[in-house]
Amino acid sequence: MYSYNYLFDFTTNVFMKMGCSEENSKSIADVFLAAEIRDHASHGMIRIKEYYELWKAGRINVKPDVRIVYETPGTAVVDGDNAVGMVAARKSMKIAIEKAKNTGTGWVATRNSNHFGIAGYYSMMALEHDMIGICLTNANPLVAPTFSVTRMMGTNPVAVAIPALRQPPFVADFATTPIARGKLAVAEKKGEKVPFGFVQNKTGTPSDDPAILKSGGSMLTLGGDRLHGSHKGYCLSAIVDIFSSLFSGANFGPFVPPSVAYLPVKDEKVGEGTGHFFGAMRIDAFQPAREFKAKMDQWIETFRAARPAEGQERVLIPGDPEREAESRIIQEGINLVPAIKDDLVAIACDLEIEFK
Amino acid sequence: MYSYNYLFDFTTNVFMKMGCSEENSKSIADVFLAAEIRDHASHGMIRIKEYYELWKAGRINVKPDVRIVYETPGTAVVDGDNAVGMVAARKSMKIAIEKAKNTGTGWVATRNSNHFGIAGYYSMMALEHDMIGICLTNANPLVAPTFSVTRMMGTNPVAVAIPALRQPPFVADFATTPIARGKLAVAEKKGEKVPFGFVQNKTGTPSDDPAILKSGGSMLTLGGDRLHGSHKGYCLSAIVDIFSSLFSGANFGPFVPPSVAYLPVKDEKVGEGTGHFFGAMRIDAFQPAREFKAKMDQWIETFRAARPAEGQERVLIPGDPEREAESRIIQEGINLVPAIKDDLVAIACDLEIEFK
Repeated sequence: MYSYNYLFDFTTNVFMKMGCSEENSKSIADVFLAAEIRDHASHGMIRIKEYYELWKAGRINVKPDVRIVYETPGTAVVDGDNAVGMVAARKSMKIAIEKAKNTGTGWVATRNSNHFGIAGYYSMMALEHDMIGICLTNANPLVAPTFSVTRMMGTNPVAVAIPALRQPPFVADFATTPIARGKLAVAEKKGEKVPFGFVQNKTGTPSDDPAILKSGGSMLTLGGDRLHGSHKGYCLSAIVDIFSSLFSGANFGPFVPPSVAYLPVKDEKVGEGTGHFFGAMRIDAFQPAREFKAKMDQWIETFRAARPAEGQERVLIPGDPEREAESRIIQEGINLVPAIKDDLVAIACDLEIEFK
Repeated sequence: MYSYNYLFDFTTNVFMKMGCSEENSKSIADVFLAAEIRDHASHGMIRIKEYYELWKAGRINVKPDVRIVYETPGTAVVDGDNAVGMVAARKSMKIAIEKAKNTGTGWVATRNSNHFGIAGYYSMMALEHDMIGICLTNANPLVAPTFSVTRMMGTNPVAVAIPALRQPPFVADFATTPIARGKLAVAEKKGEKVPFGFVQNKTGTPSDDPAILKSGGSMLTLGGDRLHGSHKGYCLSAIVDIFSSLFSGANFGPFVPPSVAYLPVKDEKVGEGTGHFFGAMRIDAFQPAREFKAKMDQWIETFRAARPAEGQERVLIPGDPEREAESRIIQEGINLVPAIKDDLVAIACDLEIEFK
């Protein structure tokens, strides 16, 4: 078990050794550790290796000039200057929040960025300002639209955070596919099949093989198949892609660059890097903040009191599982499986720092 | 077969006879007919009876004062004054568009409204202004959150319309459930079963009985079950509910009033009527409109060129099926099944107008 502080300091050191500023390195570490303690280990320490390898391959800019390239009072386009995604994303969300302070709502589209970790992190930045936070991002293509076998979209997540008064906030953060890419990898490593509805083979036949992506298969959109509404998951994922790329001038759909160094840079591009979209909405642009938040308490209490299905204990509010994990994991410590630990030891050795 | 104009004039007359102004009656007819020609007959002429019966029961205000009750330069809260939903919704979306003209983006939350027909209609109002249009609404509760058996949410649709240059616009308009309520009714009338993943019985066991809602069952969220991501559909539906009700002061979740007169008005309310949420985003608040729209053409052409799965002809862009239906149905005419025709004849007789 590792303490939060030990992994935070280590991660900060890794990125500082790579050449990032101390401030940026701490920002990056904060997002990695947020994923760990919110029990989304798939976006936590396991990913440091990917960022490290992208950097070694010269594919990440550690001294970026993340800047506004176009703006109106309530909107902006940000160029991430090929930064580590967390650096571009945090700055972009801060701009959205500042704009919302002045004009009620703030909307920022970011291009030329990279994988930014958990989308929920940025949406939650709005909460302390009595704002609703929204974060969307596109990602490297793994997912086929309904009726297709071509990987056209990423798992394109949607995150929305809404503050309450006495209740903890509502925090939804979900990929627009039935499962995350990481869960396929886990099943594959364990030699297990996956349920139908997650993936298809290269001709479009439903498959239960988690390794099918390696032989031309693709992931399916939320809904799984047309009968069960996969076209709705496709709509949602397409909206995330368009908002993330076309407002900002980033690559869209199949042109989004890979977030791992073992996949080559694409020859063809239609924009700059990966794209994100951020929104901040001041509650009091609609209702007095206190009244809205008290109503949100009532919403949460009403939904929490819904009758559980037979065999279920309770109905969850989006954000409940992560928040509960957070208190538990901060107390118990963060567990890293041996393979991840080995990766981090190797990176530490390479960078002449320590990890044990 | 009926012509567009015949049904438009008839619908206008029905609402004028009910006491609506000519302008409002035409607005209402326009939304009903848009549903018919876009091949969403479930939201077309079949619904006139529901509105008529709500009016007869004194539950709809035909002389409403739909008005802004709170506003900032980029946001507004609208009180629908218990109008026919279309009247409140059209005015609200117009306000969102006007606000976007001035400030880049416009956001309007509407309370004290009623069922407004197809959400896509209002999102599409933004297109001619080179804006992206967004429309959300809550609806009377039929859907259970993941792990629950209580009907807490409506089929809460999301509509997003995005303009292109030479290509037709991207128009997504989808319920956050695998299927629409109307399709259950059709299966029930035909005596057919439905696939698992649409509904559950009163204890939460998956069911294939389309009539299960009558014996305490509920509809499921997009994803169908937890394994296939129903919690993501729940998140999405909850976001639609919160945006539609808490910004505006409408009823949320289980308190949303029924849209049919045969269900009683609820004793308990937590707000005013049904709630909607509208957004208009000026494209040129981010990118020159022409460049964005040309890029949108490229997006559409890229996705249309994705390889079809075996046995499929082509990959669709959201909005394709409705647009194709539109050209066909305007030419061929609108078909009404005998039961709907009979309803309309009865209403016409009641109102001393003609329908044949």
